[in-house]
Amino acid sequence: MNDRAEAAMSGTDFTTLLALRAAAVGARLRAVVSAQPESRVRAAMLHAVAGGKGMRGFLVLEGAVLHGLPPEAALNAAAAVEALHAYSLIHDDLPAMDDDDLRRGRPTVHVAFDEASAILAGDALHSLAFELLADPATATDPAVRVALVAGLARAAGAAGMVLGQALDIEAETAERPLTLDEITALQAGKTGALIGWAGRAGAVLAGADPAALGRYAAALGLAFQIADDILDVTGDAGLAGKRLQKDAGRGKATFVSLLGLDGARARADVLVAEACDALAPYGARAEALREAARFVVARRA
Amino acid sequence: MNDRAEAAMSGTDFTTLLALRAAAVGARLRAVVSAQPESRVRAAMLHAVAGGKGMRGFLVLEGAVLHGLPPEAALNAAAAVEALHAYSLIHDDLPAMDDDDLRRGRPTVHVAFDEASAILAGDALHSLAFELLADPATATDPAVRVALVAGLARAAGAAGMVLGQALDIEAETAERPLTLDEITALQAGKTGALIGWAGRAGAVLAGADPAALGRYAAALGLAFQIADDILDVTGDAGLAGKRLQKDAGRGKATFVSLLGLDGARARADVLVAEACDALAPYGARAEALREAARFVVARRA
Repeated sequence: MNDRAEAAMSGTDFTTLLALRAAAVGARLRAVVSAQPESRVRAAMLHAVAGGKGMRGFLVLEGAVLHGLPPEAALNAAAAVEALHAYSLIHDDLPAMDDDDLRRGRPTVHVAFDEASAILAGDALHSLAFELLADPATATDPAVRVALVAGLARAAGAAGMVLGQALDIEAETAERPLTLDEITALQAGKTGALIGWAGRAGAVLAGADPAALGRYAAALGLAFQIADDILDVTGDAGLAGKRLQKDAGRGKATFVSLLGLDGARARADVLVAEACDALAPYGARAEALREAARFVVARRA
Repeated sequence: MNDRAEAAMSGTDFTTLLALRAAAVGARLRAVVSAQPESRVRAAMLHAVAGGKGMRGFLVLEGAVLHGLPPEAALNAAAAVEALHAYSLIHDDLPAMDDDDLRRGRPTVHVAFDEASAILAGDALHSLAFELLADPATATDPAVRVALVAGLARAAGAAGMVLGQALDIEAETAERPLTLDEITALQAGKTGALIGWAGRAGAVLAGADPAALGRYAAALGLAFQIADDILDVTGDAGLAGKRLQKDAGRGKATFVSLLGLDGARARADVLVAEACDALAPYGARAEALREAARFVVARRA
């Protein structure tokens, strides 16, 4: 019996299922990092992959389960997206970027180690994501592995995540605040691209059409970011494990500054409904992913 | 008739062939970067991929030609390794790393743009390398593409290039200078891993055994680094397009400090002979790669 079956049978709630999944993905990722040669950079990599909600890895595993695969069959792909996410957080937190000292309730990597180790640990986790996807243990069919590589590289790069980060930096010195369309485009890159890949990956692993999961993940990713903007205003820094109220201090436009708190909440709710609707072809079997969408906007951290 | 055949027929010398190859690979890489959405980071990426000798891409193309492929068939793989190399130079040059302001005769990316753009441009080129390898234009067989991805990810990561960089940083604060064995291990990661991948890639593309080219590239990579250490002492900064005499100023052990100038030159010559011997199975057809090995130690920049 796998852990999802266990969780379902014992009436485990969504947050427990998420934690179980995150623990399994985290264990795989730590094992792969620990297998690298000993160095200060490896220690920094281990620091960076600890903690986190593991939402991206969760999406990969649940998408695979939805297509009849055991969650174990998707662990490598899930670990890959968590490695890539961890790299992006390390680099995002650097002094020349967001200059954050707190992440996942602990000192950021450049604070706990040093800037050079942080840059290199991010770089090594970035390569590791692709090493994991290219591993035969990820999928026996090389065409599946290379499709995952192509998708993740595109999602991470200058037309995806990095583009979103670049637009975010340019917005800080722009003459006027961003419009709603511009922020939506920015976030589609900055957080949406990776969440989109994670949402589709399970179907790709199973050789199935990822279109429905792609629509789900697109709505989920934007809801996730709106919820982050709401939490930045209303959240508890202790629970969040990172600094909050940063955007307002920088005069940056956010979904909250443009829509108001109530308007932002309403927009997030619409997106959750869209995400759930996209799962219609899967019927009741997709309930865990619907709960994930509701969790994303209801979470307090 | 391809450009190598033209070069051979017209008696073109090695440096001209290298320049022809570098121009073709550079054009492919610039085209791929230019196809990304417009952003300051894209401009920084274009700055970073300009110039350079293009030795890694050259090795990919020549390895492919040696196995009967036209050089055009290896352009994507060659552009991928040059993208990865460019990313590593951008991050290496950052203030928190080597803090260099000059590279390939021009301001480094963080000087010409800013640190955040440099970090992101490096990250985007890193992803782009894998996007290029995963592209069907790289090889029709997905197993070949995924083998190239797996090899490049391993060469770049915490057991390869990043490990070498980590050991290099650790050496700066070590209580004693590195020994010859330790420097050899450091360089096997820092420059050797990527040159090794580039050397083998042409055979992988052709579905041939890359072992002989791997032995060639291992000797070449170490000779390359010894030549770099010699140039750091004897070279002309104007020709090199980067700051020299940096290692001595930092009290770092190098092949020159450990072996002396004559000893280092003798060691590099032995490695060039080893590299050429490894090409014996290919006979006279491998002459361009032999010339590359001789060029690497004879170059003045």
